[in-house]
Amino acid sequence: MDIAIPLYDQFTALDAIGPYEVLSRLPDATVHFLGADGTGPKKTETGMLTILAERPLEDFPHPEVIVVPGGFGTRRLMEDEATLEWVRGAHATSTWTTSVCTGALLLGAAGILDGLKATTHWLELESLRELGAEPVEERVVRQGKVITAAGVSSGIDMALTLAAEIAGPEWAQGIQLGIEYDPQPPFDAGSTRTAPPEIVELVRAAAKQLA
Amino acid sequence: MDIAIPLYDQFTALDAIGPYEVLSRLPDATVHFLGADGTGPKKTETGMLTILAERPLEDFPHPEVIVVPGGFGTRRLMEDEATLEWVRGAHATSTWTTSVCTGALLLGAAGILDGLKATTHWLELESLRELGAEPVEERVVRQGKVITAAGVSSGIDMALTLAAEIAGPEWAQGIQLGIEYDPQPPFDAGSTRTAPPEIVELVRAAAKQLA
Repeated sequence: MDIAIPLYDQFTALDAIGPYEVLSRLPDATVHFLGADGTGPKKTETGMLTILAERPLEDFPHPEVIVVPGGFGTRRLMEDEATLEWVRGAHATSTWTTSVCTGALLLGAAGILDGLKATTHWLELESLRELGAEPVEERVVRQGKVITAAGVSSGIDMALTLAAEIAGPEWAQGIQLGIEYDPQPPFDAGSTRTAPPEIVELVRAAAKQLA
Repeated sequence: MDIAIPLYDQFTALDAIGPYEVLSRLPDATVHFLGADGTGPKKTETGMLTILAERPLEDFPHPEVIVVPGGFGTRRLMEDEATLEWVRGAHATSTWTTSVCTGALLLGAAGILDGLKATTHWLELESLRELGAEPVEERVVRQGKVITAAGVSSGIDMALTLAAEIAGPEWAQGIQLGIEYDPQPPFDAGSTRTAPPEIVELVRAAAKQLA
């Protein structure tokens, strides 16, 4: 089973690596990191981390699974017709088409989320609406073979859900135990429901400054 | 603030990227991926992912924070005197010395865990005892400036704990909200406490086959 994760400059590392760590442990699965804007080194948005995208998108026109990670770089890719064409073509034959964080914006720009419920990073939910989707504030949203996940770390939960669909709940649980995913964050600030309102405002303000 | 993450062939990606995603968002912090066995491309244990370690350990003899990720490759590094010397020297002046998963074995081999409580991946707790530590089945174990985390995904929790120590609880909560770390795994199988016993046995058996 070929699992394609397109990378591009200014992606968010955990968006891609969370699902990789889960899905690479599936039986007979190979995760391919593909260069959406050419092959070679891809830098994360901080510029501190470089991952190699060793093959171009064209080498895998029909992967069984697509995982589109998010990051500032999606804004640029949303206007890149070659990437959008690949996403459309891959989705036409995929078993599962998925995204993490603002990766959903790329699915939306490709027309895949039209009329579907979908999610993304909480700061970008309204952008989804502009792309024809119905934004939903849930961690993992499944609509047929399309699964979108919320911000950054939610890709781990999405991938475990997907692992259960692909290989059954025992495999998914085995992988969860293998990566010891027994979350115990020291704070309960991971969503706008639970974070103190002043923290939500701080993050909103910081995001506006970056935009 | 310099944060050093040594990489080596056969590391586990999420061990390194979980903490990176949290700590790179700290104010005035730079995460450096250093080559423990030379600079250049480092492959994860699956061989499916390559991250660039652009600088050698020697370029950062005294980082403020050390994060040692785990992976099969630690077994080899535990006998690599140059790496152990770097770990000892960096620890002598560090503000925080930390590990994720079997990264703790490297700290142990360097003599840093002698007499300390520490944790690692649940399958390797007894190896810690052989290295002079007192193994503890907790997700994040702090002993003075030494923090060890359990398997793979626990590095996210460890890094949020560390972020609060470094920059205060508001920053840590802001980062948690930024990466939307509001875990909702579809199963409760992330630890030997909660996983069905047959799943624990399956993973134990699979690990033995790999060893």
